[in-house]
Amino acid sequence: MSSHATNLRLKLPAMCFLLQLFTIILFAVFVRYDQETSARLWHEELMNHNKSNLDNDFYFRYPSFQDVHTMIFIGFGFLMTFLKRYGFGSVAFNFLIAAFAIQWSTLIQGFFHSFRDGKIHIGIESMINADFCSGAILISFGAVLGKTSPIQLLLMALLEVTLFGINEYILLSILGAKDAGGSMTIHTFGAYFGLMVSRLLYRPQLDKSKERQGSVYHSDLFAMIGTIYLWLFWPSFNSAITAHGDDQQRTVMNTYFSLAASTLATFAISALIDKEGKLNMVHIQNAALAGGVVVGTSGEMMLTPFGAMIAGFLAGLISTLGFQFVSPILESRLKVRDTCGVHNLHGMPGVLGALLGALLATLATQDVYGDGMADVFPLVADGSRTAAYQGTCQLFALFITLGFAVIGGSLVGAALKIKGLGSPPDTQCFEDQVYWEVPEDHHNGYLTAVIHEDPERSTSI
Amino acid sequence: MSSHATNLRLKLPAMCFLLQLFTIILFAVFVRYDQETSARLWHEELMNHNKSNLDNDFYFRYPSFQDVHTMIFIGFGFLMTFLKRYGFGSVAFNFLIAAFAIQWSTLIQGFFHSFRDGKIHIGIESMINADFCSGAILISFGAVLGKTSPIQLLLMALLEVTLFGINEYILLSILGAKDAGGSMTIHTFGAYFGLMVSRLLYRPQLDKSKERQGSVYHSDLFAMIGTIYLWLFWPSFNSAITAHGDDQQRTVMNTYFSLAASTLATFAISALIDKEGKLNMVHIQNAALAGGVVVGTSGEMMLTPFGAMIAGFLAGLISTLGFQFVSPILESRLKVRDTCGVHNLHGMPGVLGALLGALLATLATQDVYGDGMADVFPLVADGSRTAAYQGTCQLFALFITLGFAVIGGSLVGAALKIKGLGSPPDTQCFEDQVYWEVPEDHHNGYLTAVIHEDPERSTSI
Amino acid sequence: MSSHATNLRLKLPAMCFLLQLFTIILFAVFVRYDQETSARLWHEELMNHNKSNLDNDFYFRYPSFQDVHTMIFIGFGFLMTFLKRYGFGSVAFNFLIAAFAIQWSTLIQGFFHSFRDGKIHIGIESMINADFCSGAILISFGAVLGKTSPIQLLLMALLEVTLFGINEYILLSILGAKDAGGSMTIHTFGAYFGLMVSRLLYRPQLDKSKERQGSVYHSDLFAMIGTIYLWLFWPSFNSAITAHGDDQQRTVMNTYFSLAASTLATFAISALIDKEGKLNMVHIQNAALAGGVVVGTSGEMMLTPFGAMIAGFLAGLISTLGFQFVSPILESRLKVRDTCGVHNLHGMPGVLGALLGALLATLATQDVYGDGMADVFPLVADGSRTAAYQGTCQLFALFITLGFAVIGGSLVGAALKIKGLGSPPDTQCFEDQVYWEVPEDHHNGYLTAVIHEDPERSTSI
Repeated sequence: MSSHATNLRLKLPAMCFLLQLFTIILFAVFVRYDQETSARLWHEELMNHNKSNLDNDFYFRYPSFQDVHTMIFIGFGFLMTFLKRYGFGSVAFNFLIAAFAIQWSTLIQGFFHSFRDGKIHIGIESMINADFCSGAILISFGAVLGKTSPIQLLLMALLEVTLFGINEYILLSILGAKDAGGSMTIHTFGAYFGLMVSRLLYRPQLDKSKERQGSVYHSDLFAMIGTIYLWLFWPSFNSAITAHGDDQQRTVMNTYFSLAASTLATFAISALIDKEGKLNMVHIQNAALAGGVVVGTSGEMMLTPFGAMIAGFLAGLISTLGFQFVSPILESRLKVRDTCGVHNLHGMPGVLGALLGALLATLATQDVYGDGMADVFPLVADGSRTAAYQGTCQLFALFITLGFAVIGGSLVGAALKIKGLGSPPDTQCFEDQVYWEVPEDHHNGYLTAVIHEDPERSTSI
Repeated sequence: MSSHATNLRLKLPAMCFLLQLFTIILFAVFVRYDQETSARLWHEELMNHNKSNLDNDFYFRYPSFQDVHTMIFIGFGFLMTFLKRYGFGSVAFNFLIAAFAIQWSTLIQGFFHSFRDGKIHIGIESMINADFCSGAILISFGAVLGKTSPIQLLLMALLEVTLFGINEYILLSILGAKDAGGSMTIHTFGAYFGLMVSRLLYRPQLDKSKERQGSVYHSDLFAMIGTIYLWLFWPSFNSAITAHGDDQQRTVMNTYFSLAASTLATFAISALIDKEGKLNMVHIQNAALAGGVVVGTSGEMMLTPFGAMIAGFLAGLISTLGFQFVSPILESRLKVRDTCGVHNLHGMPGVLGALLGALLATLATQDVYGDGMADVFPLVADGSRTAAYQGTCQLFALFITLGFAVIGGSLVGAALKIKGLGSPPDTQCFEDQVYWEVPEDHHNGYLTAVIHEDPERSTSI
Repeated sequence: MSSHATNLRLKLPAMCFLLQLFTIILFAVFVRYDQETSARLWHEELMNHNKSNLDNDFYFRYPSFQDVHTMIFIGFGFLMTFLKRYGFGSVAFNFLIAAFAIQWSTLIQGFFHSFRDGKIHIGIESMINADFCSGAILISFGAVLGKTSPIQLLLMALLEVTLFGINEYILLSILGAKDAGGSMTIHTFGAYFGLMVSRLLYRPQLDKSKERQGSVYHSDLFAMIGTIYLWLFWPSFNSAITAHGDDQQRTVMNTYFSLAASTLATFAISALIDKEGKLNMVHIQNAALAGGVVVGTSGEMMLTPFGAMIAGFLAGLISTLGFQFVSPILESRLKVRDTCGVHNLHGMPGVLGALLGALLATLATQDVYGDGMADVFPLVADGSRTAAYQGTCQLFALFITLGFAVIGGSLVGAALKIKGLGSPPDTQCFEDQVYWEVPEDHHNGYLTAVIHEDPERSTSI
């Protein structure tokens, strides 16, 4: 079944070994436990600064980290299993590229954010950030799902993590923009990056694989596992690295209400745009999550619960409409095929979230934030910039992100066109048999297994 | 396939938009961050009361909240996917009505419990309570699953949340009853409310949809995802709003042992009541959870681990017997059809749990509770009532709850009979095609593939 | 379908009732809340030792506990659903025996570790340890999956928990070995115990059930739910009972990187050993987890992140190779059939993990550990042994564990051969119909639905 070109017997092991060994060497040279993770350093900290174990950041962030971790590996992984014949590739390539990306981004982000005395110091916060970065890679994966080999995906992860790190560094450290839940750094970047990769890898003959692009009944239920976990833990995602105390709690609450409102908007629009008023699982699986994306920047700000609801409601609305009206245009006019609709879930809501963040920053006042201003807008609190200027920086951060995503995605997409990376032929996209040993029922079956029956056996029941 | 009556193209969007906009307006007028969620207020708290960020209730309750959240959306949602042709409706209508109920109950519970200076102040505890309330709605949903439209379900949620709030206020604030895990307020209320709604919506011709009422092999496995998550996180459910320290830990432990014992009882009875001694997945999916329900009131009390085991064991026993002996009677004699068997999982174990709570309250002594009495029975600790009187109040609370549930459920059931709410016809209950775009394999597949095939239909695909 | 011998109508209820009642009686006599769980004792603690509720161990360990709990019931349970016709038995017998084992091991471990003044005192840590012990039982279950009755499994749990407790006591309390994540006590013990049980229960005619030993497409996806949850929460598993502060955080981080590296190794080797370079779901489902097993002993030590990666990489490598080369030899030469491949996931990586722990202990220096030495190697810190001697003890602990597992497993395997325990016939292994009421599609469906095909359609794909 698999042609020579997609036989990865040597290429995939070589790629995995090289990446892993290279990573191990760089870790050996550069990466060290930080002062909260090292036995000696933490006990010095306890002694010298009169701290208690409770002050270890672990207890503030580990529950959130585990929720984020679940989103990355269960949430993204199962969300993509909606395809009828690509369940293995969806959940397992998601697993592979995220397992690599968290290691690689620990290095890249470490060089930019915690490089001191020639070493990168890591702890619970770097683990959250590494998971965040792999989230962006998985969003891009959603755009090209079913049309790329694991070799291509690993190469994309290697390059995209690096560009993610540079973009994030410019936004957070140079521009002083705030983006705790990543409306810009994660969602906007990941979506437009992936869309550009998909554009560069455009296949005019993809219709040959058209029959595999839909779902079956149970694959839609598997996808709902992903959806619900993403929805549930998005409050943890947005709050995982905000400041301790009110900031974490407020971010959680804003995200909770934004998601609830986006869910109602999604059901409403999904029924409205169908001729018979029937709901569409694709919308529920995706657009209901837009409420999490849209408050990724502003969730830690004094958005107010009703403000979060309005944001979520609008995000669910544009996201559902995007599936119906924008995706077809992207495909027909711009030759951008977006397997999972990441433009609708991450792209447009991410941009909206960035604009909302800029608005909230501009509106920030001492009266509303009190001493909490130092946590949310430190540069405003210490007087080095005005709220309006902070808002301008937020806006500027969005444009930089779009630029990085579009240019970076184009370059990486071009790189993935190199021959010999094991890309599936046009007739075998969205098909697990290309890269996987599959059980007998999948070989020539599934859809047919359900439909065609030996009547003699059936009646014997 | 869907008749005009079940076409929700305008009704569902209208309902969702109205409810959401109405909620947003009420939130804008009334709802504010509480002092642990507001940037200004929490930082004043930090400064003026010499607190640290660790004192923020967020760190005591957020992990429990996320477990509860998972129970509501994954636990309830997937538990109901056991139906062979109603998986979309189960998990997604669960999603819709819970997403609305958490918003609406934040308002209703807020008016009763945290209304000060004309505003409702919300934080992590109100989020947990909102999730709790939506749990009651989802229990009622279980009784009517497959027989109602999403419009009817949203209307039920709107009204039931309101009545839930009133009943809870009477129990906790007026009667001074204790019910941290909601044996009364959540389980008993939700179950009998739902059963009365189901009674009012009784369909004499429901046999026309009989063939869809069972499961298929994989739908039973999807349901087990729901079951196991409910089972795992029930200790968090019962302890989520108990007092800090020993109370949370004790409630967790009691629930853990109660659930373990109810699991063994369920397997035992399930084999015992089958002629061939075979186990029944319906029992395992449901009755094994009765151990969580039965310690909903008493879990925070000094129940002792072996006491928790006895309670759980009895609950698993009566719950399994209920599926075999009580449900058929409810249906044939009382015309109450209970799709998910909520009477067995939430109704009877809830009542048993309320009685157990009354018993434990009556037996409470200073010797056993020490200074911890103030957390568990504050009115006994401060001398304003005796333990025996507390027990009487607990008992009284049960009867009030039953009254509210039965009368409220009847009224709401009557309201749901209004024409034009999109209810499915008798021949199309338990069928996703009524409200959903479904994949091809579901169209005339699945059921038919499984049971008998109409060869003409299959070939027409 | 089920012969008299497998009819459990009286046996299973009798077994469950007896075990549960016996446990309840022992709990009533011996088990009490510890000082952090009891209302009176904790409030005395608060008062007399100037503690705050935050000092309650609950807040340090409950999030980790819930992750471990999820691994035991979702992780192990769903991992085993890969079999096409044994999904009910996999997830539900897992549920049953774990629900019993956590109760029984609370008693056994309690007698050894927290027996004071004639009572066992329990709290959050005993709950974690009880879950750990049931993990070992479930590993053994994996070796005999599909070939044993629930009666046999409960009997195995009863005996294995007891032997687990003795072995653990010798290792931790007498030898002073360290094994926080259980490379030895849980993984090595559970695997070799289960393999010996499987050896004793060897069925020469098992080929009669051969067609049921594989997976179908969706059963492999259900199994991935188990895999991913085990992978995600393994950092919590290894850190759940380590010392507060840096130890918990460091263990989490080591496990996180070890797992990531073992994932890449697994994908690499899986492609490499297939003629067509196709990936194998069995490898991904299992070997990717070996990185968690291999740092079970050393995770809390100063392993360094790159050290963890090397360990995980090697573990993934030998585990995947084990599926290909070692399992067939075990079966053909040693007559050990290992349904889930626990030798590859838990056995070999467990031994490797024990050796790694011995090495790390030997290399421990005051310079690296500082005052943290007292948490990791208390006997080295207080001068009662050298690091080299600690390493020797670790090594000795491995051999004791292997001895206990092999001898204990043999004895228990022999006990399970007693007639009348309801073991399935050779023709009905890996088949849910033996012990379960199954939905109609499973009766003679599924497999047949899968195998019987309209040849014309199939070839056209």
